[in-house]
Amino acid sequence: MRKAIILLSGGLDSVTALAIAQQEGFECYAISFDYGQRHKSELAFAQRISKLYNVVEHKVVTLGMGGFGGSALTDESIKVPDHLEPGIPVTYVPARNTIFLSMALGWAEVLAAHDIFIGVNAVDYSGYPDCRPEFIGAFQKLANLATKAGVEGEHFTIHTPLIDLSKAEIIQKGIELGVDYSKTVSCYSADDSGAACGVCDACRLRAAGFALAGVDDPTSYQ
Amino acid sequence: MRKAIILLSGGLDSVTALAIAQQEGFECYAISFDYGQRHKSELAFAQRISKLYNVVEHKVVTLGMGGFGGSALTDESIKVPDHLEPGIPVTYVPARNTIFLSMALGWAEVLAAHDIFIGVNAVDYSGYPDCRPEFIGAFQKLANLATKAGVEGEHFTIHTPLIDLSKAEIIQKGIELGVDYSKTVSCYSADDSGAACGVCDACRLRAAGFALAGVDDPTSYQ
Repeated sequence: MRKAIILLSGGLDSVTALAIAQQEGFECYAISFDYGQRHKSELAFAQRISKLYNVVEHKVVTLGMGGFGGSALTDESIKVPDHLEPGIPVTYVPARNTIFLSMALGWAEVLAAHDIFIGVNAVDYSGYPDCRPEFIGAFQKLANLATKAGVEGEHFTIHTPLIDLSKAEIIQKGIELGVDYSKTVSCYSADDSGAACGVCDACRLRAAGFALAGVDDPTSYQ
Repeated sequence: MRKAIILLSGGLDSVTALAIAQQEGFECYAISFDYGQRHKSELAFAQRISKLYNVVEHKVVTLGMGGFGGSALTDESIKVPDHLEPGIPVTYVPARNTIFLSMALGWAEVLAAHDIFIGVNAVDYSGYPDCRPEFIGAFQKLANLATKAGVEGEHFTIHTPLIDLSKAEIIQKGIELGVDYSKTVSCYSADDSGAACGVCDACRLRAAGFALAGVDDPTSYQ
């Protein structure tokens, strides 16, 4: 079996990406990050999901990037907006997916895994630059230049099975695969139990996705 | 003054890169990483150098990548070789420069800095893939796709002032700029005081550089 690493935030998208990786026959390893995010309860969700899906190993990696600030998700002095805003919102975390994918790449090389799954989506999303196909393509190219494995002829693939799907389509795909979305949390301001605020970008995109998919929203709200 | 971030390990190359960035008129910020490396004493050197050079801020960022293992520098069960070996040696840390540059990129974006200096060298080096110009070029391209600043028209530059220099030329350049190499540590097995083993790759490349440059080696050996 080929090994794959799945970036697992504990949210709707990353769990669906995990379910897809398993369906595709990969032996799955999950990685999550404790990066100073205000919605740290997502890590407990990621841990439970990892057990539920019997991943071979789940690593929660500490990243001291909270001290950089500059984002509503890592800087308590910046408020999470309660409505969608034009442009790239203040919830954007500088270079986050570059950092997360780099860490996943390091672990992948140690495991001799050459497949990394990330649940980015460029349809119903917040406009983050590091969710776009051109970013993923550039990272994949980098991965193959950056590593001993790449130099020695292995080829790393960054899988983005959700990138062209609407949120409703992601949910429909997940439901087909038996994903229990009540066990996921997407909210940027989730409380310690993971209950969602209902008004941030992530909550609005998620709720609209369930509505359009014709699926009852299983989210626990505050 | 334009701001620049310098990746500062406390070794010979990164200090020279810092001295060059200052000479070029940048307002300098330094970043170092506590990544589970066995030669952790380099962090104290980086801190002292940051003070000596009056950098605006020096961040020491924790990265929980030690748990990945797979390198003699982060895994105590893998011995640091006492001689140069053909190919990419076991001191290679998977994806290290990708991870370090990604973190620097995140901080750079928060600071509104668009220049990052890294003291990589592709002449007298250990053959690490992430020290080569093609890797740096791919990372720069990625940086401009990955970030809000890049999307909004800013351009990130990854500066590699040492990439084409021999170790002796790096030392000569540093001496011209007044660098005190007694305040740097390059050894992979440096003890707590920073005294060097004299036999690892990093020690051999450094000692040969001083010899060829005709400069007395100021290194403190164990």
